[in-house]
Amino acid sequence: MPTSSASPSEGTEAMNTLRDVGEFGLIRRVTADRVQPGTTLLGPGDDAAVVEARDGRVVACTDVLVEGVHFRLDWSAPDDVGRKAAAANLADVAAMGAVPTALLVGLACPRDTPVETLEGIASGLWAEASSAGAGVVGGDVAAGPAIVLSVTALGSLEGRPPVTRAGAKPGDVVALCGRIGWAAAGLDVLHRGFRSPVAVVGAHRVPEPPYAAGPQAARAGATSMIDVSDGLLADLGHLAAASGVTVDVSTSALVVPPRLVEVASALGVDPLEWLLTGGEDHALAATFPPGAVPEGWTVIGGVTEGDAAVLVDGAPHEGAAGWDHFAG
Amino acid sequence: MPTSSASPSEGTEAMNTLRDVGEFGLIRRVTADRVQPGTTLLGPGDDAAVVEARDGRVVACTDVLVEGVHFRLDWSAPDDVGRKAAAANLADVAAMGAVPTALLVGLACPRDTPVETLEGIASGLWAEASSAGAGVVGGDVAAGPAIVLSVTALGSLEGRPPVTRAGAKPGDVVALCGRIGWAAAGLDVLHRGFRSPVAVVGAHRVPEPPYAAGPQAARAGATSMIDVSDGLLADLGHLAAASGVTVDVSTSALVVPPRLVEVASALGVDPLEWLLTGGEDHALAATFPPGAVPEGWTVIGGVTEGDAAVLVDGAPHEGAAGWDHFAG
Repeated sequence: MPTSSASPSEGTEAMNTLRDVGEFGLIRRVTADRVQPGTTLLGPGDDAAVVEARDGRVVACTDVLVEGVHFRLDWSAPDDVGRKAAAANLADVAAMGAVPTALLVGLACPRDTPVETLEGIASGLWAEASSAGAGVVGGDVAAGPAIVLSVTALGSLEGRPPVTRAGAKPGDVVALCGRIGWAAAGLDVLHRGFRSPVAVVGAHRVPEPPYAAGPQAARAGATSMIDVSDGLLADLGHLAAASGVTVDVSTSALVVPPRLVEVASALGVDPLEWLLTGGEDHALAATFPPGAVPEGWTVIGGVTEGDAAVLVDGAPHEGAAGWDHFAG
Repeated sequence: MPTSSASPSEGTEAMNTLRDVGEFGLIRRVTADRVQPGTTLLGPGDDAAVVEARDGRVVACTDVLVEGVHFRLDWSAPDDVGRKAAAANLADVAAMGAVPTALLVGLACPRDTPVETLEGIASGLWAEASSAGAGVVGGDVAAGPAIVLSVTALGSLEGRPPVTRAGAKPGDVVALCGRIGWAAAGLDVLHRGFRSPVAVVGAHRVPEPPYAAGPQAARAGATSMIDVSDGLLADLGHLAAASGVTVDVSTSALVVPPRLVEVASALGVDPLEWLLTGGEDHALAATFPPGAVPEGWTVIGGVTEGDAAVLVDGAPHEGAAGWDHFAG
């Protein structure tokens, strides 16, 4: 029972907003007819869900997306927003070398939010979770001044040790799986008032993290791993700091896709900056002993002894490394 | 990398707001020197945490608290808000018959939120989690228009089946553990502009759920259980619907504490309404076979065959049963 009084239900003819259908009505709508994976032992509808954690451990992480900060509903469809919120968390689970099993969703939104918008977000969450093998097992919805989506993902390490950020060793190679720079290019395009090319704008709207590459890297003997969400250099910086090593990225190994070259040329910017500092594509970066890099991963640099730092072609990078929400 | 540009850091002399210390600075401050329980196999600082789930399953739930809806910072201290957000989730875990192991926290807040406020919330989350044996293992912070706290709790069933809402059987008794009506009385007092009596206002600010009573009830053979968060009748209604039974509450078994009688008398209201419809104390309600009710639980009614419904002394209750966030 919240602190403020609720507005009484207004007798609108159609059930168009959250105020009309109510909290429980919304929950019924977004949970009906969903098919849960086998790991969901007890799904939504009780005080809590029960999820399988077969090896006696569960991987868990939380990521928050805020309307107007991480997404805009004039730039992204509700389904895109749901997929993006799910992807950010599922990629974090993958970056531990784990397989995602479940999402829980905390949602705050204005009472006059169209039910259609919320159903779209829920569909996107379900679609992305399903693509990674996970179910949406629980959540909560509350009135708030903007749409805030806080998603928690759970995952299974399948008996393996977690691949942390702290295990990189001098002599390891740095490898990447998944796209970088695409979401940043799309955001740049949108900020300048364009809606195309669709390929880059779509990458901003919905990332395509290589979920299976996380467990694959773990099985191959990755010594450290991180999800590239803040930007390649920023995230390799976190990895270098946790491991106490220097990471050196070779720009010659970073192939700028022709599409990004075109877009950058049209905008008059350097596309390499998107690759080095753009976040939100949720590629995975990992370190491996030489010779252990699995198929689908591209070697982009090496690990050396030295101060915890990231170098680009042997020298510090000029300019911002990536994103800090408040001090950025 | 969010959609909107961040404001540049303003060179204030003291590091007073989130804008000043930044996302990573805040995370460092609120995670430093915290002692994790043994179930935290990998704590904050990586892409995800790893939590023990010894019997191969994990209980998980999420609850959202919004500033101005669930709490007001002129009525509650930041520490109270953190404790309340934790308690709502920890109580849900307990209501499955599980022992809480971990919390994850998604926080959105304005960039000019004082760091002191956020440190207070974090301290409250930690204090309440610790009191239930759990750690705070992860989270995320993002800029947003108001303080939104989305907390996910994890828990362990210790090898027992979950106690759902769906197992109540005709012939069972209904029993309660923990306080009801106190938080509602406190809220009523605050809404009328008073700040005392402290006992009821304090109950609104920070609930005191009987966490250990959840596993205790499960061990004693509870057939169904629910956390009383929306109000006794509303929540027993959920239990009755899930179990397909009629629940009959005897008001003669509900002792109105003298303190609530006094406060109700001063306000000119019926204190029994607080007990029947007030939420947020997070008592636990459960059904047991007759004779199986454990120590510390009070029998307040019975379960009979019939339509899924809650009766009070054999008849439907007049007035609202409890809270629905949007249609309420």
